[in-house]
This record gives sequence, structure tokens and C-alpha cells, in this order.
Amino acid sequence: MTKNQTFNVALVGATGAVGQQMLKTLVDKSFPIRSLKLLSSPRSAGKKIEFNGETLTVEEATPEQFEGVDIALFSAGGAVSKKLAPEAVKRGAVVIDNTSAYRQDEEVPLVVPEVNEDDLHKHQGIIANPNCSTIQMVVALEPIKKAYGLKKVIVSTYQAVSGAGLGAVDEMYEQTQQILNEEDISPELLPVSKDKKHYQIAFNALPQIDVFQDNGYTFEEMKMVNETKKILRDSSLAVSATCVRLPVETGHSESVYVETEKGGATAKDVQGVLAEGAGITLQDDPATQTYPLATEAKGLPDVFVGRVRQDLDAENGYHLWVVSDNLLKGAAYNSVQIAESLVKLGIIGL
Amino acid sequence: MTKNQTFNVALVGATGAVGQQMLKTLVDKSFPIRSLKLLSSPRSAGKKIEFNGETLTVEEATPEQFEGVDIALFSAGGAVSKKLAPEAVKRGAVVIDNTSAYRQDEEVPLVVPEVNEDDLHKHQGIIANPNCSTIQMVVALEPIKKAYGLKKVIVSTYQAVSGAGLGAVDEMYEQTQQILNEEDISPELLPVSKDKKHYQIAFNALPQIDVFQDNGYTFEEMKMVNETKKILRDSSLAVSATCVRLPVETGHSESVYVETEKGGATAKDVQGVLAEGAGITLQDDPATQTYPLATEAKGLPDVFVGRVRQDLDAENGYHLWVVSDNLLKGAAYNSVQIAESLVKLGIIGL
Repeated sequence: MTKNQTFNVALVGATGAVGQQMLKTLVDKSFPIRSLKLLSSPRSAGKKIEFNGETLTVEEATPEQFEGVDIALFSAGGAVSKKLAPEAVKRGAVVIDNTSAYRQDEEVPLVVPEVNEDDLHKHQGIIANPNCSTIQMVVALEPIKKAYGLKKVIVSTYQAVSGAGLGAVDEMYEQTQQILNEEDISPELLPVSKDKKHYQIAFNALPQIDVFQDNGYTFEEMKMVNETKKILRDSSLAVSATCVRLPVETGHSESVYVETEKGGATAKDVQGVLAEGAGITLQDDPATQTYPLATEAKGLPDVFVGRVRQDLDAENGYHLWVVSDNLLKGAAYNSVQIAESLVKLGIIGL
Repeated sequence: MTKNQTFNVALVGATGAVGQQMLKTLVDKSFPIRSLKLLSSPRSAGKKIEFNGETLTVEEATPEQFEGVDIALFSAGGAVSKKLAPEAVKRGAVVIDNTSAYRQDEEVPLVVPEVNEDDLHKHQGIIANPNCSTIQMVVALEPIKKAYGLKKVIVSTYQAVSGAGLGAVDEMYEQTQQILNEEDISPELLPVSKDKKHYQIAFNALPQIDVFQDNGYTFEEMKMVNETKKILRDSSLAVSATCVRLPVETGHSESVYVETEKGGATAKDVQGVLAEGAGITLQDDPATQTYPLATEAKGLPDVFVGRVRQDLDAENGYHLWVVSDNLLKGAAYNSVQIAESLVKLGIIGL
């Protein structure tokens, strides 16, 4: 990185769950900001937000707002990205988009810096940030892939409600209190706000995240499947997913089964490879009941991996428990990492 | 069943979470009871319990208490079963044991009536009731096995706290209220009361049920593996499990991946086979967001199956979401079903 370079940054969706973590991450990482513009829908325009000791006013996101912007972080839903990301690019900004709008676009790199930072060189204005549940899994898969190759992945997720937004977090806590009070509840948002039916999330496990596709999988499950193949650059990798929403505020957990190309590695070998993996903290000691937990991962940028075991039958099969803060590495932190990589690789800036 | 036969029944562990459901199930199923004796540790002796309009007093479980007993239901922990089940058998009772004490004993049938009722003929006094998480899975696997054969099973569980006893349920609710009140918490029971460390269960997912074994799997995971092979009478079946405790009161959910011997069945075929399966209610219609939920399974005896999908890569691979009340089909209901089967098959009685 050239010293003392600074950037004009715009953040679309500053008032959301991920937007708030983006602001925090920009400060925590001391990202070299020259100016910061907070943009939103007309509804949220006018709100005041604290940033690094200053009070900023949220403005309505319009095409003209992106004049002079170097980096535009989008996290305000797919429709907003579809409409405004091309406008930002037209005006010279590089867009880092945290929605699913462009993830499967062949011309758009889908990037987790620990895994496929190189793909950033191919960008044509828009870079997609993967889905939260995908990011933490591919961080854990990458070192195993490098060491042994990957054949098949089966994942069952244990996902937190903050992935569905701040409203879903409020719904969970309110509903929980109502149940403790033995009051009636009226679910309105979860599992999927725009879907027809809504179910109790408190003290329950909902096997639906996002809407169903024609093949019986949910959109969240297909995101994990398709994004994993794209990020790992292996369209022949077998991936299937079952995605489940839990009454956990923040921190996705995943039970991941992996079959490798090469056989013969012990669980200890795989632990060793994971411990050296970029962005990973290994927490794996049954003797001291050490394993990753959502409540402990919250607020931290790492991907935590534990419960590493060899499959009881397949000599090239392994089971992992993978936990990460879905708002940080799963969203905001990864987006800001992408911005840092763009600077480090000389893709933006002087 | 010979008409008007009645039985002297003893219940060891009547004050526990499962014991209470056993009493309820005996009434709900109108099990032909001549006399009912409630037994427990000295600590709980003297307690009064309502049963079918009568008030019964819990007595201390001693060998002599089993004189004249036809059927002894045990659900008071493995140590009690180890000590007293042989005493009951010596006095002529048939023991149906809901602990893990005898499950892997080659001379003890391990029975889920919908799957292997025939094994009851081999009993030598003790019959073991399988672990809750195993029972609901094998009920779902059995019709698939019959139709297509089974090669491999990978399960990730989403288990309710009532499986850890009434104390664990209290801990979950109290801790939840403390967190909502922003008070400090002090976990004392979960994930495993007798283990060294205890973690927050409220708004969390704990990847440990029962203590760790030398191979890195927990005892709960190995129960699922070994019991599934025994009940399905297939020691070469590949089974691996990851068991996770959730802040759900009652109702275990399971994400199950199955590879069949025969290929070529569609998800619709598998749904058809499951819909006809004994003890199963299929709840599977993505168009109406119909899938099994722990909160809806609570209090019902069925095993609910949904989210049936073909694996995206293996043409003989299928994913299922399996939910059941862990205290009923997972414990009390299955135990009373075993008693009914013993009568129906003429193994006990005249």
C-alpha cells in the first residue's frame, strides 16, 4: 500500500445490522478514509450516526451521490444494488456489494480474501461479498483443499437471527419475553419476512432461510452451494446444504462434513492444517471442552473451527464445527477486507 | 392380546422428565394396569404423584419392591438400572430400560417397535429403549432402508434441553430471563452436568451432548452410531453424527443425509415411501412452507419428516429434516409401545 493514500468512501445501508458493523470495522481497521458518505433509502435519510467521534447525517442514495467516490460499500438489499451499483461504477467508484444481486454474475468476482483474493484483479467495477454462511465455511475449507483436495461437502447450519436484520433480532427477544410471560405471540418476520407464513423463532429451530426454490432447496441453501463452487473455483465440487435458523442473536455455527481427494490424513493432520489456515482460530480440545461457540465468537473477526473428527467410516471424510460472527467475517469485516486487498494489490489508488 | 389381561407395573424414576411422560403415556394409551408402583431414589421417596385420578406415593426402589411385578419401566439413570434391573428380572419382571446401561449388551434387544419389534422374542429379561435422538432417526430410516437399502448416514442434530432433564429446562428458562434482564448468568448444568465446564445455553448452540470419548466423538454421538447399527441390524452401515444442544425445551430436530444402496429414486419417491412408513407423519410442502417444527411436534407421538430433497450431486443421496418429541417417541412413548408389543406378541401374559 502506498503510504498516506486515502479514499472517498460511500456506505449504502448505514442504518442496517451489517451497515453498523461496517462503520465499526472501518474504525477498528483504521481504514484510510478521506471522506465518508452515509447513504440510505429516503425513509432513513436524515438520521444522525456517530462515526469515529463525528456526527454524520444519512443522505438519500441517488446516482449523483457517487460522484468522486472511490469505494462504495453496498448493504441495503439486492434491489438497491441492482439499481445503484452500476451508477456508482459509471461514476468511477469500485463497488463492494454485500447483497446477492451480482454474486453469480460471471463478470463479478466473489471474494473471500483468505481464499481467492487474486480474483479481484478481474473486477469490472463491482465486487461481490459472499453470503455470511458461505464465507465462514470456505475459510475453513480452503486449507483442507490446499492440503488434500476436496470432493464433497455436506453442511447443516445453525444460523443466528441477526442475519435476517435488526427487526428479526427484536422479534426474537420480544417473542422470548412473551413466552416467558406465558403471553400470546404473533410472529411477523421470521423465518422470511417476505414469505407467506411466519413461525415462532424463540425456543425453536426453523429449517427455512430465504424462500424455497423449485428444487426444494431454499435460496440460502443454493447460495451456499453455488457460491462455494465459485469462490473455490471448482464447479465439479459436490456441495449440499441444509440451512436452519436458531434463536441465537449473532454467530452462525455450521456442522460441516468434508470428503477429501487424498485419503490418509488423520484428524490431527487436519487440525494442523486448519491451525495454519488464514483467518482461522482452531479451538479444539475435547479434554478441556474447548470448541467454538456462537456466544464467544460474537464481536471477533476470526473463523473458529473445532470438533475436528475423522469420519467413522470414510477414511477421507472429516467432520468440523465452524463458527463465526455473521455480521463481521460473514459480512462487514469481509467487505472491508476486500477494500484493503484492493488497495494492497494496487487495484485502486495510485 | 388376550382380553382383560392386566399387569403389575413398576416405574423407577417417576419424578423425572421422562418418568412423568411415561405416566401420561400409560394413561393416554389405556395400558392394562392391574397395579402401579412408583419407585425412586431415597431422595424422592415419599413424594405424591397423581395418576389417573389417584394419588400415589413414591417409594424407595429396593430389590424386594419388584416381587410380583410383571413389567418394570426404568428411567432413573444408568447406575440405578445396572444395580436394580437384574434384581427385577430375578423376581420375574420384564424390564424395559430407558437408560444406556444395557443398550450395547448383545443379549439385550434394543427395540423401536416400528423397526425391529421381532427382536423382543430374544429377550432374556431386559429390553433396552434406545436413545431419543436414535429412535426418531431410525423410524425415518426404516422405510427408506426397506425400499432402497442404506449405505451411509450423516446426521447433525438440533436437540432440546429436556433431554438433559428437568433441571436443564429450568436452567435454560432462568438463564434466558437473566439475559433479557441483562443480569449475570452462572451456567451449572449444561451442556453436561457431570462434566467440568458449563456454558450458556440461552441464545446459543452447544456442540457437546454427554462426555467426550477417546475418538473425539461425544457419547451421545457414539450412541447414535452404535444404536442405529444395532436396531437396523447392519453393522456395516456407515453412520456418523454431530450432536448439538439448542435452547429448545422439547422436540429434537435432525438434519439427516442418507445414501441408499439402489439409485434412481426421486425425492418424490422417497416422500411416498416415508408417508407410508410406520409412526411417520410426512410434513413436506415447500409451497406452503410446511415442514416439521419442534414446537409443533411437542406432545405428539409421531416422528415428523419433511424437507425431503435429493442430494445435488449423489443420485442415491437424500436430505431429510426429522423432528419428534424427545420425551415421547424418544423415550416414554417408545417404552410403553415396547410393553404393548410384549403383550401383543404374547411374550408376556398368559
